[in-house]
Amino acid sequence: MDNRPIGIFDSGIGGLTVFKEIRNLLPHEDLIYFGDTARVPYGSKSVQVVRRFSAEIASFLTLQNVKMLVIACNTASALALGTLKTETSLPVIGVIDPGVRAAIKGAGEGPIGVIGTRATIASGAYQDRISRLRCNLRVVARACPLLVPVVEENLMHSDIARMALEMYLGDFKKQQVSSLILACTHYPLLKDLINEFFEGKTLLIDSARETAIEVREVLQARRINTAATQAGRETFFVSDSTEAFADIAADFLGRPVAGECFLHSWQNEP
Amino acid sequence: MDNRPIGIFDSGIGGLTVFKEIRNLLPHEDLIYFGDTARVPYGSKSVQVVRRFSAEIASFLTLQNVKMLVIACNTASALALGTLKTETSLPVIGVIDPGVRAAIKGAGEGPIGVIGTRATIASGAYQDRISRLRCNLRVVARACPLLVPVVEENLMHSDIARMALEMYLGDFKKQQVSSLILACTHYPLLKDLINEFFEGKTLLIDSARETAIEVREVLQARRINTAATQAGRETFFVSDSTEAFADIAADFLGRPVAGECFLHSWQNEP
Repeated sequence: MDNRPIGIFDSGIGGLTVFKEIRNLLPHEDLIYFGDTARVPYGSKSVQVVRRFSAEIASFLTLQNVKMLVIACNTASALALGTLKTETSLPVIGVIDPGVRAAIKGAGEGPIGVIGTRATIASGAYQDRISRLRCNLRVVARACPLLVPVVEENLMHSDIARMALEMYLGDFKKQQVSSLILACTHYPLLKDLINEFFEGKTLLIDSARETAIEVREVLQARRINTAATQAGRETFFVSDSTEAFADIAADFLGRPVAGECFLHSWQNEP
Repeated sequence: MDNRPIGIFDSGIGGLTVFKEIRNLLPHEDLIYFGDTARVPYGSKSVQVVRRFSAEIASFLTLQNVKMLVIACNTASALALGTLKTETSLPVIGVIDPGVRAAIKGAGEGPIGVIGTRATIASGAYQDRISRLRCNLRVVARACPLLVPVVEENLMHSDIARMALEMYLGDFKKQQVSSLILACTHYPLLKDLINEFFEGKTLLIDSARETAIEVREVLQARRINTAATQAGRETFFVSDSTEAFADIAADFLGRPVAGECFLHSWQNEP
């Protein structure tokens, strides 16, 4: 038993989809979320910078006395999971392995598709992981930078969104992709439209739920579940405006932010 | 006479459009450019964060012994010009006033239009400035968050770009906007398409050139031009990958980066 909180972080808001699934599966655990909203997004930045930012957040969460780190960001999982694991003795979970396992389990005849940010796709993390687990599976991957702003502009059901999917995923459709990993926390909000685009023939993998399942498994395997029986506490840290965060967070959580929300300004030395 | 360099900064790459115009007008001046590529973009962030980031860059450039600061970023100009001016004795120039003056000069019957990032438009900086200079002019303003990724995806001549313009600027067309300020350094790359959209009836204001003219005027008024007669030196600092910067910078400058390019990592203390 271990009553310390679980630390969950993301480049911004999107990781709340993972937070929400963890909360659903583990109602008694205390959760601390860090959203790096002052430096969001990570998806177009370099490996070095994403690793440095991730390490800074991991140090911060470690000071908050967490028992486990969950990287609820595809880009940071792709670029920084390996280095973070070497820098801490805490268990660290990213969103990639859970998504990959679900995609392989659901794979049919056609190739597995992966869509994400430029950095996630360029890292090759998903492609490598899939071919390591099942080297005979074909993988097609594509960066879709327009999809995040489409979601943020609330254009999930617009012709612009349809046209963007046609541009990004037309080839995937021709190749009859059997399962598609939505390797960016914003993309599940486009699930309906993507499903429509593939006429329901492609299995869409949303890593958030898969990741929550893995978190529960690791807690059980290491016997570090909480002993608490009351509802777990929720604490949020963001590096930009807490008000803006609370507003948008409610959309992602499907309910208002329940816990306290603090501003953590990175202190820079010029 | 003052042979010190001019300091120019932006949230990332876009400010190079201003850098380029300054170089064209002032071939003998030494120029230092700072692109905050690790924390780009500023356009969706809070006033407090944009002010803090701008102040950090201004301190850094001051340590580089610049004689003048040019904020080559619409968001930072809108949110941080006032506070920066109180924090330094150096002359500070933003991109807003030059653009506003050009728009007013070219204004006809219809209202003046302004398009930019969420933060720029929400700040009301352009709207305030125009009504202070010519209170009888009508102003219409709109945030267009999709246009930056459209440019970055090189979709400047696509149907998606046309559809986005229709969505954002359809009302402006109906209202017969007489001049339109492109209040984001990426937008000039969409100039042809916007011109086509307005059927050439709307004057498009690109602040970069107007800002360079103002820089020259301030140097002359304060008698702080360089005495040098050889080509000015160019130095670049970025907070993320110098390689990625050099690649994209060439597109914005229309020529390879000529000077040295250094990485400046912000040192954070968790």
